[in-house]
Formats: sequence, C-alpha cells, structure tokens
Amino acid sequence: MKVEVCFSPALYPFYAEQEDHIVVVVDIFRASTTMCAALKNGAKSIMPVASIEEAQVYKQRGFLVGAERNVKRCEFADFGNSPFDYTRDKVEGKDVVFTTTNGTQAIDMASDARILIIGAFSNISTIAEFCKQQQKDVIVLCAGWNNRFNIEDTLFGGALTGKLLQKGYTLASDAATVALSMWQEAEPNIREYINRTEHIKRLEANNLQDSVDYCLTEDTVNILPLYDKETRKITNA
Amino acid sequence: MKVEVCFSPALYPFYAEQEDHIVVVVDIFRASTTMCAALKNGAKSIMPVASIEEAQVYKQRGFLVGAERNVKRCEFADFGNSPFDYTRDKVEGKDVVFTTTNGTQAIDMASDARILIIGAFSNISTIAEFCKQQQKDVIVLCAGWNNRFNIEDTLFGGALTGKLLQKGYTLASDAATVALSMWQEAEPNIREYINRTEHIKRLEANNLQDSVDYCLTEDTVNILPLYDKETRKITNA
Repeated sequence: MKVEVCFSPALYPFYAEQEDHIVVVVDIFRASTTMCAALKNGAKSIMPVASIEEAQVYKQRGFLVGAERNVKRCEFADFGNSPFDYTRDKVEGKDVVFTTTNGTQAIDMASDARILIIGAFSNISTIAEFCKQQQKDVIVLCAGWNNRFNIEDTLFGGALTGKLLQKGYTLASDAATVALSMWQEAEPNIREYINRTEHIKRLEANNLQDSVDYCLTEDTVNILPLYDKETRKITNA
Repeated sequence: MKVEVCFSPALYPFYAEQEDHIVVVVDIFRASTTMCAALKNGAKSIMPVASIEEAQVYKQRGFLVGAERNVKRCEFADFGNSPFDYTRDKVEGKDVVFTTTNGTQAIDMASDARILIIGAFSNISTIAEFCKQQQKDVIVLCAGWNNRFNIEDTLFGGALTGKLLQKGYTLASDAATVALSMWQEAEPNIREYINRTEHIKRLEANNLQDSVDYCLTEDTVNILPLYDKETRKITNA
C-alpha cells in the first residue's frame, strides 16, 4: 500500500488515478479539526456544502449552519469555523450544515473516492488505524488556501505518512517524501514552525488564534468522520 | 518585490494574480537545462511546441527537432531531451523546435506573463541578476511531472528564492517558504538529496542519468532565455 500527499484540490485529478483508495481530506486551520470537534460533541452529522447560497437555504429551513469565508463567520450563520463554537449543548443530536473557504470544496473535489474521511491532528491515530485495517492506498488531500499550497495541511500529510510507514505503507511520490521530511523537521517544535505560515497571520489579524494549539494537538478525539456519497453527510463511523 | 514558487502548471492560475511579473519556467530534468545548453552552443532560437504532432510538422518542413516523451527521444526527432545532444556542430545558427513531457506545457501555461524566461541551475545567477534589474515580482513555475509536484524543480525554486532574498526580495507564500527550506536542507549534498526523487529512478531505468550532475551544477552558462510572445521563440536576450 502507498501513501500519497496531494497539495491542492486543483491537483487531485492528477493524483487520483483510480477510485479504489482512501482519501483523507484535511484542513487543519480549521475546517477538518472543527468537524471532528462537532462530531465529538455529539453532532448527528455534518453536511458539507460548497456555496454560501446553499448554506443559506438550509438555514431558512431551520438547520444549524456553520459558515466561514476568509477566516470569518458569515453573519447569517450559527457558527463560524472555530472548533470551540460547536459545543455539546448546541450540536448534540443535530445535523449541522457546514461551508468553509477551502475544506468543503476539497470534499466536493474528492467525493467520488471509494472512501472519503476527514483527518485532523485531533484524530490522526484513529485515521491511521482505519487506513491500516482497510489495506488500501491513501491520498491525503490538502485543502490548501484557494487552491494554493499551505504548510499546515502538508504537515498533517507528513505526520500521517510517518504513521502509515510504520504500519507497512510506502511513499507514493516526491510530494509524500517532502511532506514527511517537513514533518520530521517541524515535529520537535511544531508551534514555532507553524508561526512562519501565511494562515497564522490571517488568524492573528482577525484575533482568531485561540484554537491554534488545539488544532495542532494529536489524538484528542476518537472520531472517524466518514462521508456518505448518497446522503452527502459526514458521520462518525 | 516578492518571490513565489508555483509547484505545478495546473496551479499557475491560482498564483498569477496579475500579469506584471516575471515567470521563470523550470524543468531541471531536463528541458530547461537543455534549452540553456542549446542556446549556449549557438542555437539561434528554441521554438517550444506543446504537441508531438506540431513538432512532426516542423520536422517535415526541414527544421531541427528535439522531442521527448516520458524521458525518451521520440523516434522521428533529431534530438531527445539531454543537454549533451545539442552540440555546437549541430545547433549553431539554427532554429530548434522543442517539445517535452512537461517543460513546454509549462511555457504554454504561462505564455501571457509580461516576461517569461527559462531557468536552470546552469544559468541561475544570470536569472537572479536579471530579476533584480527588472524590479518585478517573480514566480518560479515548476514544470513538475504531468502536473504533479516534483522535488528537483522545487529545489531550483528554493535556490533562486535564496538568491533573490539576498537581493532584497521577500517570500510571497508558504510555497516559497518551503521551497527555500528544502533547498537549505539539500544544498550541502544535493546529489544525495536528489537520489530520493521519482525522476532519478525514471532516468536510471532508461540509462539516461549521465547528465544529472550537469543539470544540478550552478552557473555553467551565461544565458538568459527569453520567450517572445509574438514569434513564440526563445532566444538569448
């Protein structure tokens, strides 16, 4: 089995040579971390939608809606894109409609994959163990920023690659090689490494850096968010 | 001025926010290195064409043609994609039509840029000095492999980024940051670093590794290959 890291949704068609693989969609700051937190706090499902307009329609129908663009919460929405917004008292037993700048577009791009799951540092060991059990090739799909490369999603790709190598996987490509190398450099002091990223500056400029440490902490939830093609919902498998 | 590194032709539209920049197209193994070598040996121009069919038409009209797909020379062509093919006795004073798996497609993608030049380790200082003189933002466009990320083109991006930082440029993005970091890790022993790449394996499998050291050596030519949008030719400016 091989592990691949795809740096942008726009590159996914060039990496997805067949459909019989597991795609792990990651958007560390913060959509994939937030989806894991919402499911941990009892949300019945997350329904990712790509557009603001679609999310607004769901809001009018009475759904809880999380919506973010350019790091900020959309005004009409119940939640923004912070994992701390989705508390148990608000989400338990509820379907949550969710749209973000990058994460939900990445899910859309890979929705034909045999298995699509949502990865974050918070559930990385759960993801790794699931991949090993499935015995399938893995592609980490980095949500990036407006289809551009970003460091934080790639670091997650490297971290997951490291765990999968220990479980018998091999590197698929130069991209996986570099992601692993970046992770090995970053791991001793990930917070310092991450300070050089574009996105930290965006979060700090909007006073939204409170969840950064949480987003970088491994294994705080035992959640496997699985996307169902038929219902277009993500639930804890 | 900022320096950006774009990891794939497919990502170029997301990095080219305006046209008033210099695009440096790079395909270290081996198209951009080979174009520099051909111009060094007196070729009057290089005419990049994207398709085999177009190259065949030029061949029938009597042009010299270099054509490669998947590292191998196309049978109808005069040359493959090795810089050692384009010797002075063969190319001096001639227009050479050129098509390769990745490099010429990258040129095609960026052909609207205000200034498009061809970069390689062999002419890296000439490129850096030109950029500084022009006082414009720079995007290194990595040709990659079938639109996928590769290590060798990214290392060139990092090396050029390093030189431009010394000339007053700043990093544009996470991608430039990572390319520079990779270069700093690789530079002390680039040949060993490059041994981990996918493309070395492709070259070795076809016994084409003879030019690898040459492709990684800085400043062997003083050539500035400039693309002219009107004539679609690359000449030494």
